[in-house]
Amino acid sequence: MNLKAQNPALLIVDVQKGFEEVDYWGGNRNNPDAEDKALQILAKWRALNLPIFHIQHSSTEPQSKLHPSHPGFELKDGFKPQGEEPLIVKNVNSAFIGTDLKERLDAQGIDTVVIVGLTTNHCISTTTRMAGNLGYKTYLVNDATATFDRVGINGEKYDAETLHMTTMASLHNEFATVVNLADLLETL
Amino acid sequence: MNLKAQNPALLIVDVQKGFEEVDYWGGNRNNPDAEDKALQILAKWRALNLPIFHIQHSSTEPQSKLHPSHPGFELKDGFKPQGEEPLIVKNVNSAFIGTDLKERLDAQGIDTVVIVGLTTNHCISTTTRMAGNLGYKTYLVNDATATFDRVGINGEKYDAETLHMTTMASLHNEFATVVNLADLLETL
Repeated sequence: MNLKAQNPALLIVDVQKGFEEVDYWGGNRNNPDAEDKALQILAKWRALNLPIFHIQHSSTEPQSKLHPSHPGFELKDGFKPQGEEPLIVKNVNSAFIGTDLKERLDAQGIDTVVIVGLTTNHCISTTTRMAGNLGYKTYLVNDATATFDRVGINGEKYDAETLHMTTMASLHNEFATVVNLADLLETL
Repeated sequence: MNLKAQNPALLIVDVQKGFEEVDYWGGNRNNPDAEDKALQILAKWRALNLPIFHIQHSSTEPQSKLHPSHPGFELKDGFKPQGEEPLIVKNVNSAFIGTDLKERLDAQGIDTVVIVGLTTNHCISTTTRMAGNLGYKTYLVNDATATFDRVGINGEKYDAETLHMTTMASLHNEFATVVNLADLLETL
């Protein structure tokens, strides 16, 4: 596979400082190197002059760590858009709802997307599902995403790694091809 | 809460005969009573004259058990639309993509949906995520949905109940309010 020839768009989802407040999100984040890996991918995309879309979550809940009034709204260091790279601000989990992401991809004739960012079982899963269902050839980078522990509907606890890996199991070969950083870089 | 006063639409997703071929889908289905519970909800909706939308998956893959050329495409017994109840046929996981479901809900002024059907981590999760993100007040009936075992990205096995319950954990209080049949019937 030569992914580069498909002019894939990199979608960097919600890599924001508010996610550094780990306890607020449930604690015990997995994949601590996810941002480092996402930065390697971003650098590669820039070096190859491939399309990049930065996605930023703007919560409508004033108390959220991702509300624009909170310093956590800011993108993490290293993730600021450069030059003409578009920044798409969204209010819900899916980067395709309430935004012009689809229109922008289609206007550029892009039919392939590569998704990285936070958090695996919320905005990443939702954006990946919609990308696949909208017909984009979709790649999700397992080790460039991460999530937090979460309490289930009966009060039971699920650790971040279980939530992450069950999400990948549900997405792979149904909505996306799940890859790791090393696999992805080999295709470029 | 008086859910009935909100004129909630019941979305019955993909309760089709093709899902009876358990091994094809990964084996070991959970919630064997999900259809019985969905039928109780359907009967209640009809008795109360609340809006009902039947959703049927039409796979574009000829070998799929949900391809219209296969007998498994048919809705399970008891789930056929009656009278004017609309049937919405979809080709992807989300009932909102490639269909007029949103237009129909909006035309009727419906802002609340209750979701039941198959399978938890694919079409149910995707439809629930989009319903919540599109702004509908969304209820998901835990024990009127079900899924199958699935193999993870590293060849590890996840049992249906784990996939189901981690899905519920990820959806509850983020995209939907997850309820059980007994809770739902109390609100009607």
